[in-house]
Amino acid sequence: MYVNSVGMTTIADHWGLSILDLAVEASKGALKGFGKTKPDHIIVGNMFSAVGARQEHLGAMVADGLGLSGTPAFKVEAACSSGGSAFNVGFNLVRSGAIDSALVVGVEKMRDLEPEEVSSALAMAESAEYTQFVGATFAALNGLLARYYMEKYDVSRDELSSIPVIDHLNAVTASHAQFRKAITPEVVSRSAMIADPLRLFDCAPVGDGAAAVLLVNEHAASGTKRKMAEVLGGRIATNEFSIYERDDILDFKSTRLAFRGALEQAGLAPGKISLVELHDAFSVVGALALEAMGYSKRGKGSKDAKEGRYGRGSDLPINTFGGLKARGHPVGATGMYQIAEAYLQLTDQAGKNQVEGAQYAATQNIGGVDTTAAVHVLGRAS
Amino acid sequence: MYVNSVGMTTIADHWGLSILDLAVEASKGALKGFGKTKPDHIIVGNMFSAVGARQEHLGAMVADGLGLSGTPAFKVEAACSSGGSAFNVGFNLVRSGAIDSALVVGVEKMRDLEPEEVSSALAMAESAEYTQFVGATFAALNGLLARYYMEKYDVSRDELSSIPVIDHLNAVTASHAQFRKAITPEVVSRSAMIADPLRLFDCAPVGDGAAAVLLVNEHAASGTKRKMAEVLGGRIATNEFSIYERDDILDFKSTRLAFRGALEQAGLAPGKISLVELHDAFSVVGALALEAMGYSKRGKGSKDAKEGRYGRGSDLPINTFGGLKARGHPVGATGMYQIAEAYLQLTDQAGKNQVEGAQYAATQNIGGVDTTAAVHVLGRAS
Repeated sequence: MYVNSVGMTTIADHWGLSILDLAVEASKGALKGFGKTKPDHIIVGNMFSAVGARQEHLGAMVADGLGLSGTPAFKVEAACSSGGSAFNVGFNLVRSGAIDSALVVGVEKMRDLEPEEVSSALAMAESAEYTQFVGATFAALNGLLARYYMEKYDVSRDELSSIPVIDHLNAVTASHAQFRKAITPEVVSRSAMIADPLRLFDCAPVGDGAAAVLLVNEHAASGTKRKMAEVLGGRIATNEFSIYERDDILDFKSTRLAFRGALEQAGLAPGKISLVELHDAFSVVGALALEAMGYSKRGKGSKDAKEGRYGRGSDLPINTFGGLKARGHPVGATGMYQIAEAYLQLTDQAGKNQVEGAQYAATQNIGGVDTTAAVHVLGRAS
Repeated sequence: MYVNSVGMTTIADHWGLSILDLAVEASKGALKGFGKTKPDHIIVGNMFSAVGARQEHLGAMVADGLGLSGTPAFKVEAACSSGGSAFNVGFNLVRSGAIDSALVVGVEKMRDLEPEEVSSALAMAESAEYTQFVGATFAALNGLLARYYMEKYDVSRDELSSIPVIDHLNAVTASHAQFRKAITPEVVSRSAMIADPLRLFDCAPVGDGAAAVLLVNEHAASGTKRKMAEVLGGRIATNEFSIYERDDILDFKSTRLAFRGALEQAGLAPGKISLVELHDAFSVVGALALEAMGYSKRGKGSKDAKEGRYGRGSDLPINTFGGLKARGHPVGATGMYQIAEAYLQLTDQAGKNQVEGAQYAATQNIGGVDTTAAVHVLGRAS
């Protein structure tokens, strides 16, 4: 089964566009050139439209907004992994033959909220009764991880900055990215402290955006002349809900399980992957994800990045359009941006961001502090 | 594929239970006696935990609460049809062979909100920019429908009351129901006006609850000696998003499409259905649903009910445990209560509410004013 086509909005402060406008713009891009009348299902990935836009029922709303009312439609939510989880539902439904095609669109409108409201909305990914109750924001929780990570593995400030530096460099030539300026480790070190030791440039920004893909099986794809990417494997996994429940907070178990499951389904060894779109909502999270996937040894994720392991031209480029830090992180849309970016790479449509000879791409999207992970593996269509 | 087992909480003011507690209680009931280690997927149906409990990420949270962290988990939302839509996702995933088993649990915690907050939360099923903006609550929108319905088809007050009367009678012997008292048409007529002509007893109540089912295919079912119900067909459909967009507001198009699709998949004629669990959030909505399914002619739904067509002992009993009006309507859980009730009927476990000789049951769950409909058809396991 295949990603037939993709659509994206830029990630920005879209003051003039509603959450529906964003979802429709991305969806129309993905549906362009689809030979059939309409997709069998419409699946919307979104985390917090309820508090961001006082809007639920996005499935039917997007169907109607596209002139496709009648079509089965619903929303999938799994915090910041809502996009990847929505894609996984579509992937499993199309792959198994339950349906022939699905439009999957991830969308989030964050900028209509005040900054403290965004923190509060994101905190809904953690327990209201325990974690939210004590006032822990996601920046605070990830600050704990970063402090422990740096102490335990003797990681320096500049080493921790290395993944944001890669992100910002890659975003310079990414037309949909939110922040298209290269940075140095010094920029990170001098930026405002958010949750010690995490500084502003360790943290993904707040933005509005939507990304959509059209999934098809052989039947629905017939007759199209588009370049397609094949979806080879996908898996959602979960971890103990809150970090205080975990034996080892630096072990990203759900990423590990989901990555292993997706690769097994794809029949690929980890070394076959040409590029990874990582969920680096915070610098430390990107490093821990690379370790959970086995690309870096424990404690070496940021150090390896500093030594050039994951940059452009390396054997395993990450975040080829800027990742969460620079492409941006419109929560429920992020997982779908990753899929769309993997599609662009595998169909040689990545322009100046093209990874030459890319054969296989992995996308890793998490909700909470690695509480849910949705990992997918895509390849060139044969 | 089969419903292996079900679990439910009572529907009530559960002041002492969190949304997680409710979901876990129902889920444990459904998992009891399951031969395997754990279900392949956990799917949570819920509409407004974000505003009801400042909690999202219910998929991973329920997995963790059940001691099943690791398991793929996510939430499905489609307003008041969140439960039925979550079930449909599970149904399609298991039926198609993508997975062998799924725990699907619908849950809503409504009573922690003030009444006006509940109205506001429910209104998120309608457009924030148009319908919510003018202050139209769901009671108001359904009041418009009821006024038009009564005028157009010369429906009397007592005729409109007939479905709530059936509901309350059936709930007397339903141990999980919220309101277990029989009523007369006079009780409805004398109750407080909510949205003229709809009175208090035309409207489903506010309550907390959760209902869960374990879905299995032949592979996962092997070895169990439980009574099971077979899931024969299921379909989600959508309508124009808001009623102001529709040519005929009394034509429940999404119910019509979903019912037809589910029956076609089941290979059954409408006359084969033994009982229907209806989404009668308001009395008029139940009547319009019966008309959309073709069981009553246009304008005759309430009149037929008044004449005994849909009561106990009739050819087509509806809402055999009390429906939305008397069993209750904990929004995202409602569709799953309907499935659980159909299971009880088809496995002869309905006690005093048993419909003798029930062979096939249909469940109809809607979100918005028939904006999304999820319809399923279940039968006795052969």
